[in-house]
Amino acid sequence: MQNIAILGAGRIGRIHAHNVAAQGLRLKYVVDPMADAAASLAAEVGAMVGGLETALGDASIAGVIIASSTDTHLDYCLRAVAAGKAVFCEKPIDLDLARARGAQKELNCAKARLFLGFNRRFDPHFQALKSKLAAGVVGKLETLHITSHDPSPPPIAYVKVSGGLFKDMAIHDFDMARWLLDEEPTAVFASASCLVDPAIGEAGDVDTAKTLLRTASGKLCVISNSRRSGYGYDQRLEAYGSGGLIRADNVLESTVSRWQEQGAASDLFQNFFLDRYADAYRREMAHFARILRSEVEPSVGYADGVAALALAEAAAESVRTGKVVSL
Amino acid sequence: MQNIAILGAGRIGRIHAHNVAAQGLRLKYVVDPMADAAASLAAEVGAMVGGLETALGDASIAGVIIASSTDTHLDYCLRAVAAGKAVFCEKPIDLDLARARGAQKELNCAKARLFLGFNRRFDPHFQALKSKLAAGVVGKLETLHITSHDPSPPPIAYVKVSGGLFKDMAIHDFDMARWLLDEEPTAVFASASCLVDPAIGEAGDVDTAKTLLRTASGKLCVISNSRRSGYGYDQRLEAYGSGGLIRADNVLESTVSRWQEQGAASDLFQNFFLDRYADAYRREMAHFARILRSEVEPSVGYADGVAALALAEAAAESVRTGKVVSL
Amino acid sequence: MQNIAILGAGRIGRIHAHNVAAQGLRLKYVVDPMADAAASLAAEVGAMVGGLETALGDASIAGVIIASSTDTHLDYCLRAVAAGKAVFCEKPIDLDLARARGAQKELNCAKARLFLGFNRRFDPHFQALKSKLAAGVVGKLETLHITSHDPSPPPIAYVKVSGGLFKDMAIHDFDMARWLLDEEPTAVFASASCLVDPAIGEAGDVDTAKTLLRTASGKLCVISNSRRSGYGYDQRLEAYGSGGLIRADNVLESTVSRWQEQGAASDLFQNFFLDRYADAYRREMAHFARILRSEVEPSVGYADGVAALALAEAAAESVRTGKVVSL
Amino acid sequence: MQNIAILGAGRIGRIHAHNVAAQGLRLKYVVDPMADAAASLAAEVGAMVGGLETALGDASIAGVIIASSTDTHLDYCLRAVAAGKAVFCEKPIDLDLARARGAQKELNCAKARLFLGFNRRFDPHFQALKSKLAAGVVGKLETLHITSHDPSPPPIAYVKVSGGLFKDMAIHDFDMARWLLDEEPTAVFASASCLVDPAIGEAGDVDTAKTLLRTASGKLCVISNSRRSGYGYDQRLEAYGSGGLIRADNVLESTVSRWQEQGAASDLFQNFFLDRYADAYRREMAHFARILRSEVEPSVGYADGVAALALAEAAAESVRTGKVVSL
Repeated sequence: MQNIAILGAGRIGRIHAHNVAAQGLRLKYVVDPMADAAASLAAEVGAMVGGLETALGDASIAGVIIASSTDTHLDYCLRAVAAGKAVFCEKPIDLDLARARGAQKELNCAKARLFLGFNRRFDPHFQALKSKLAAGVVGKLETLHITSHDPSPPPIAYVKVSGGLFKDMAIHDFDMARWLLDEEPTAVFASASCLVDPAIGEAGDVDTAKTLLRTASGKLCVISNSRRSGYGYDQRLEAYGSGGLIRADNVLESTVSRWQEQGAASDLFQNFFLDRYADAYRREMAHFARILRSEVEPSVGYADGVAALALAEAAAESVRTGKVVSL
Repeated sequence: MQNIAILGAGRIGRIHAHNVAAQGLRLKYVVDPMADAAASLAAEVGAMVGGLETALGDASIAGVIIASSTDTHLDYCLRAVAAGKAVFCEKPIDLDLARARGAQKELNCAKARLFLGFNRRFDPHFQALKSKLAAGVVGKLETLHITSHDPSPPPIAYVKVSGGLFKDMAIHDFDMARWLLDEEPTAVFASASCLVDPAIGEAGDVDTAKTLLRTASGKLCVISNSRRSGYGYDQRLEAYGSGGLIRADNVLESTVSRWQEQGAASDLFQNFFLDRYADAYRREMAHFARILRSEVEPSVGYADGVAALALAEAAAESVRTGKVVSL
Repeated sequence: MQNIAILGAGRIGRIHAHNVAAQGLRLKYVVDPMADAAASLAAEVGAMVGGLETALGDASIAGVIIASSTDTHLDYCLRAVAAGKAVFCEKPIDLDLARARGAQKELNCAKARLFLGFNRRFDPHFQALKSKLAAGVVGKLETLHITSHDPSPPPIAYVKVSGGLFKDMAIHDFDMARWLLDEEPTAVFASASCLVDPAIGEAGDVDTAKTLLRTASGKLCVISNSRRSGYGYDQRLEAYGSGGLIRADNVLESTVSRWQEQGAASDLFQNFFLDRYADAYRREMAHFARILRSEVEPSVGYADGVAALALAEAAAESVRTGKVVSL
Repeated sequence: MQNIAILGAGRIGRIHAHNVAAQGLRLKYVVDPMADAAASLAAEVGAMVGGLETALGDASIAGVIIASSTDTHLDYCLRAVAAGKAVFCEKPIDLDLARARGAQKELNCAKARLFLGFNRRFDPHFQALKSKLAAGVVGKLETLHITSHDPSPPPIAYVKVSGGLFKDMAIHDFDMARWLLDEEPTAVFASASCLVDPAIGEAGDVDTAKTLLRTASGKLCVISNSRRSGYGYDQRLEAYGSGGLIRADNVLESTVSRWQEQGAASDLFQNFFLDRYADAYRREMAHFARILRSEVEPSVGYADGVAALALAEAAAESVRTGKVVSL
C-alpha cells in the first residue's frame, strides 16, 4: 500500500482525499495553510496534518495530489517532481501561458510522472463516446459541438481571480476538443458577451461565449459557454462524422418522470460538477493509482495543460481583437 | 366522382364529412334528425340536407357513412346494405351482442361492402408497429400491453347510455388486441373499479379497468383503461416478441421542450381522439374511397365488430362474476 | 373564390399547387417553359396551362405564386407587382445582393403585397418555440443554436448554380436567426470546409460550415451547416434564455421504437424538406390566402429576403477573407 | 467499528462482502461450505474463513449477512436471531409459505432486528418515485404497472430448484407492489405461459406471466414477468394517480446515442441485476449499518417476506386453477 499526500483541503481536495482509499492507496498527509480545513479533512480520512516540506521529504510518500489554489500549482508541481514524487495536479497548471511554457522542460519529460486532472476525460459517458468514435462507429469525425454551461455564476470575488471564463471554465472544453478532434486546432475565433450579470463585466470578464476552432485538415469545433444555464450543469457533446452523429447527453438525477396536464417532466438535471463528475473523479484516482504502480503512463500530462491554456489565451485574445488567432 | 351520403352530423360525422373531398368523393347528402346540425354541416361542405329514404333511394349514391347514434347503427347498416350501398359504419355496431350476431348473416357476406371504422388500425404509428411486427423485426409476438386512458371522463348522461366502459371505450382496445395478436383470445379476465368519480359508479359503470386476454397458443395481452389520465390521451402499445420489444408511444403537440430549474419539460400530450387520430380518420376515408372504387375489400368488417363486442361483453361479465370467461 | 396562377411546375411548385385548393383558392394557370411539366401539373389540379402574359394580364387573377428557377424570381416579382397581383415568392429572391437591393423600393412598399416563402417560419414546431420564447417562458433570449444539416449533398450540377452553401442552404438559417433573435446581426464570422465530397470543393463551394452571428446587444447565434448528415434532415433549434433553454427537436417518421440487444432504436428521422415541412407549406398557403383576402399583411416580406441574403453574402466573405464582416 | 459475518460466498454474497467496508463495518468471517469460495472471498476482503458456530458464537459479531442458498435462509435466520445477532437476510426467506409462517413469531418480533434484502426498495430511481408518490405529486395512487423481465432465462438446473417464476422472480415485484400500493392486495389473478423455452415447461415452470392484484379499496396492479426480454434487464414502474402518471424507466449504460440512417440508437440497457442494482446493494448495506448502530429499525422485515411469499403462492395457485385467489 503506497502512501500519498494531498496539498489542498478545499472542495476539490476533499473529493480526491475521499477517493484515495478505494484505490488501495493510503493518504498519509493533508497539507493546507488553513489549519482547520487540514485538520478536519485529516480526521475524516484517517490521515495526519503535515507541512509541505515534511510531505515532500518523507521517502515513504510515492505521490502527491495538488489540489491547492491555482497560483501554487506550478511551484508545487516543480517541487514535487524534484522530490521524485508522482504528481496528480488539478487543472489549470497556471494562468500564465509564458510561465507554464517555461516549466515545460522540467515537467513534460518522461520521468516526470505528472498526471493533469482533466476530469472530463474520465467521465464514463464521454469515454463511451470517445471509444465509439475511435472505433469508427460514425466514420471519420468532421465537426464537434461542445456545450458547457454552468448552472449559475461563481461569486464576483472568484471571477476576479479566476483568470477569466476561457482559462477558468472553457479550459476543460479546449481539452475535450483536443482529445476528441485528435488533431491540434490551428485557428481560434471567439465572440463573447456579458449577458448574465453586469458585475461580471465590471470585473473585466465575460459570462457568455461561443468559440470556433479549426484544425489544419479543416475539422471544425464549436464550444458554447455560459456561466448560467438556469437548469443545472449542461455538459453535452455532439460529434458529427462521415457516417452520422454520436452524442453524449446530460445526466439526470433519476429516470423518474411525470406526465401531467402540462406534459411530461423529467427529474432534475444533475446540478454541478461534484455530482456530474463523481465517477470521473473516482476514475482519475484509479488512473493515478495505476501510475503509482507503474502500470501506465499518465494519459493526460503537462503538455496537454499547456496546449489547453494556449487555446484559452487565444480565445481571449480573439474576443479582445475581434480577429482570428492562429496557433 | 362518386357520390356519398352521411348519416349523422355530430362530432364524428363532421370529421368524416370534412375528409370526404380530399379523397375525390362528393358528399351529396347530410342526414340528421337535428335539422340545424344537418343544415350547418351541409353548408360547410357544399352538400344538401336530405332524408334517409332520399339518400338510400338515390341511385347516384355509391356509399353511406353511418356516424349517427349507436342505437341506429345496426338498422342503418341493414338498410344501406339492402339498398346496395357500400357502408362505412362507426364503431360499435351495436351494444347488444345477440342482436349484432343476429345480423351477421346479412352484413358479413362478401357482397356487403361494410367497412367498420376502427380508426386506430389506420393510425400511422400503430400501422408502423403492425408492419414491423409482421415483418418479424422482434421475432414472434408473445405478449402485448395496450394502454388506453382518456384525458377525462365523459358527462354522466353519456356514461348512462354508453354501454359501459368495456363496450364504449375498451372496444377499440379489444379490436387492437385481435389485430395485433393475430389470434383470437379464448379467455378473458378483467378487474375494474370506480376510482375516478363515484357518480360513474352510481350510474352503474366502472372508470378504471385492467383486462387480461389469453389466446389458445398462450399469448397474453393486458389492456389498461381509465376514464381519466390527467395528462391527455394516453394511447400506447408494447409488443413483446422473441427478439425484443416494439413500442408505439404517445404523440405530443410539438417537439418543443424546455429545460429549467425543475428539469426538462415536454410539450403537451395530444389531448383527445380528434387530434390524436386526425390522420387515422383521413386514412379511413381513403380506404373507403378505395372500397368504393372496388380496389380493395374492407380491411376491417362486420365480423370484427362482433368479435370486439363479444370480448367487451366477456370482460364485463368477468368483472360481474369475478371469474375468467371463456370464448 | 379567388383565382391564382403559379409560375413553375417543378418540385416546389407542385407542392404549392396541391395546397391551393384546401385554402379556398382556385388555381387557374400553371406557367412553365417546360410544356410537359406544366401540362401534367395542370391536369392534376384542374388548372389550365397558360403563358406568363396571359396570367398577369388576366384581371381575375388575384395572386401569383413564383416557384420558378431562382434567376427569374426578381423579374417575375417586379412584373407581378406591376400587374397589381399579390405575390407569394419562393426564397431566395435573388443570388445577387446588389441587384436585390436595387429592387427594394418597388418591392418593399406597403402596397406590394409580397410574401416571401421562408417556409420554416411556418413550421408548427418552430412556431411553438417562437411563441413560447415571445411569451417569456425562458426569460430573455441570450444565445441561439441552429442546426441545419441536409441528409445528402445535391448533384454537382446543382451545386455549381446554387450560389453556394450560404445563399442556397444557410439562407433559411439566417432568416431563422433574424426571426428568433428579434434583433439584426451586426457581425458575421464563418469558417467552412469541404469535408463531404471533394467535387463540391472543385465546384468552388464548401459543404460544411459553422457561422457565428452577433447582435448589437451582444446576443450570439451559432449556425451549423452540412450538406450531408448521414441520418436525414437535421433541423433543430436551441434558444438559451435568462430562464433556461427552449428547444425544438427533429421529427421522426413515427413514435415507434424497438428495444433489442443493441439498445433502443427509434424510427427514421424524416428524410428531407418535402416531408419535414409539409405542414409548413400548407400553412404558408393559408397565410397567402389570408393576404389575398386582405386579412393580414405578409408576415415575411421582401426586406427579409434582402436581409437574409446580406447575411449569406457576409458569411461567404468571412470564409474568403478569414475575417469578421460587419453589417 | 462493528464486526459482522457473512454466510454464503456466492455471487450475491460477494457483492455484499465488498460493500461492507464502505459502511464502516468490519467483515470478520466468511462462512461457506465451499471452502475455495470462502477462502477466495475472505482473502479479497481481508476477512477470515470461519464456521457457522464460530461466527455465531463470537460475541464480537454484531450482525450476520445471510446470502447462502435459499433452503438455509430460515434456519440461519432462526439461529442468528437466537444468538442475538442482527440479521440481513437475502430474499426469499423460504420457498414454503407454511414453514415461513411457522417462524413468524420468533422472527417478526421487535427485538429480532431482521432486515430482509428486498433490494429494489433501495434503488435510487424507485426511491425517487416512491417519495414523489408519497408527497402526492400525482395525487392519490389508483393503479400500478410493474414490468420485470430478465434478459435471458437461467439454466434449467436452476429453474428446477428455483421454486418457480412467481417465488423466484416475481417475488420482488410482489414486494414492490405492496410497498408502492401501500395497501395489501386481497385478490390475485395470474395467467402464465411457456413461450420462451419448452424446457422450462418440461421442468414444470412457466416463463411468461401477467398477474393482476386488487386491493380492498379497488386499487389495481398489473405485473408483467418474462424470463427473457431479449434486450437486457427491463425494470420499470408506472404509477397512475388522480393527478397523472409517475414513471421510472430503465437505466442505460451511458447517455451516448447515435443518429444514423436507421434512426437514433441508444446505448445498451443495463444487462442484469448486478449492474442495475449496484447502488441498491450499497444502500442496503448502509441501512444494515444503521440498524447495527441502532439508529433505525429495519425498513423491511420478516413479515414483508412472508407477505410477498403469500402473493407468489397465490399467483401460482391462480395459474393452476384458472381462478382468482383471495387473500
